[in-house]
Amino acid sequence: MKVGIVGLGLMGGSFALALRACYDDVEILGYDHNDQHCIEALETHIVDKITDELEDFADLDLIVLAIPVDGIVAVTQKLTFLSEKTTVMDFGSTKKVIIDAVPASIRKNFIAAHPMTGTEKSGPSAAFSDLYRGKVVVLCNVEESGEAQQKLAKKIFTDLGMKIFYMDAQEHDRHAAFISHMPHAMSYALANAVMKQENPKAIIALAGGGFRDMSRIAKSSPNMWTDVFRQNRDNLILAIECFKGELERCETLVAQERWDELYNWMEKANDLHRIL
Amino acid sequence: MKVGIVGLGLMGGSFALALRACYDDVEILGYDHNDQHCIEALETHIVDKITDELEDFADLDLIVLAIPVDGIVAVTQKLTFLSEKTTVMDFGSTKKVIIDAVPASIRKNFIAAHPMTGTEKSGPSAAFSDLYRGKVVVLCNVEESGEAQQKLAKKIFTDLGMKIFYMDAQEHDRHAAFISHMPHAMSYALANAVMKQENPKAIIALAGGGFRDMSRIAKSSPNMWTDVFRQNRDNLILAIECFKGELERCETLVAQERWDELYNWMEKANDLHRIL
Repeated sequence: MKVGIVGLGLMGGSFALALRACYDDVEILGYDHNDQHCIEALETHIVDKITDELEDFADLDLIVLAIPVDGIVAVTQKLTFLSEKTTVMDFGSTKKVIIDAVPASIRKNFIAAHPMTGTEKSGPSAAFSDLYRGKVVVLCNVEESGEAQQKLAKKIFTDLGMKIFYMDAQEHDRHAAFISHMPHAMSYALANAVMKQENPKAIIALAGGGFRDMSRIAKSSPNMWTDVFRQNRDNLILAIECFKGELERCETLVAQERWDELYNWMEKANDLHRIL
Repeated sequence: MKVGIVGLGLMGGSFALALRACYDDVEILGYDHNDQHCIEALETHIVDKITDELEDFADLDLIVLAIPVDGIVAVTQKLTFLSEKTTVMDFGSTKKVIIDAVPASIRKNFIAAHPMTGTEKSGPSAAFSDLYRGKVVVLCNVEESGEAQQKLAKKIFTDLGMKIFYMDAQEHDRHAAFISHMPHAMSYALANAVMKQENPKAIIALAGGGFRDMSRIAKSSPNMWTDVFRQNRDNLILAIECFKGELERCETLVAQERWDELYNWMEKANDLHRIL
């Protein structure tokens, strides 16, 4: 299988490593604006070759777009030279804006995928072959993709040990705002709230596991997340408003010393873990 | 060393196991309102004996109060029969209310400690001997404790591989509100915000590592945390207000499409991890 990967960071790099671990016959061509990433990806055998011409991707079986979501929109505009057989998948955290932007002439080539995995780290050095194993991948609006493309995507994600969910792009974006985008806003806000205090070092010295967990994703790339927030603006604002409502509920119960109601509010939150 | 442990849950149980792993000559007497906890603690050799009379603790070397913070206040009132040599330590997440409540006659016996560790689990079955290793413990207002008590506490925490910080109780409570109490409020609020949506199961099915981390401490005991929020009410409200200010800043930048400023705001949050 001939594969092209656009974006040789954590997601793209790990996907390349996962494909290599899964299949014998994988040949990987890489593309990245960052020269250092290209060098590292060659050195660590994430890719076999590097190109700086997207046209070199014309005859590949599979192209993976593992770059920030605005980049995905930009690159898909340039892929109109693709042959019918090629499958293009994007790994963006938003889906509606991306799908709407795919040129009609390559819409059948396109699979809109969102693998629900990642770490707070970035770059090819953060890549590892097990990033996708056991994780969920959401495929959106697959009925608009070609049959061969649907089949290939399903085969690859299954072979990599992923659990596939099918979803409408709008529904995905609403859910993703709650489960991923808004929690990133929370984590960034927590980090900034602490850093603004008089003596952040003295506060942070006391960090236990709870704070480490809550602030971990505040390490995430501003580049990637500014794009996500822009593309999923309305859903994000809605999710922040819902969350703020709950936090203000807590604050009110504390301020008004309504301890029994606070207890019940916390107990209701415990319920999440009966589902999760 | 003869040790009494009040509260045979995660914290008390793990401390017993840690002492046993560290010293040869430890004899542990346990006390817990929950009969099932007492049985489990005996079965798993967390304690050697169980008592339901606090008076049996009169001649011990060390008493550890590993119970919710309101319980700590209540129990300390009953410990006025202690001999001069005994050291009493509490492991509560708040310090000022507890220290203020210690009867003057046993103030020298008392060490106010806050080990910055834990998990979202509870009960003796969650206990493990390494819970304290490598973690921070904050000791507050130690100058009010007896010299023998200070020495014993310092020796034990050092022997267990902990890093000791000394702090004024008020300063501790302010810092703890930011680093621990408010993040718990955030996590509970996140869980409740998601659970209130139309189809929480469909949302939660998409949970990746970020959401799992952000919602983990929403599993925590409402019993324990209602007490903490009550005892640290003012600092908690202040911390929630600071956090809300940052979250609203994010929301405004998104709503007004001020993407460059959003990028900078995220980049500032990244700074936390240069300290953490």
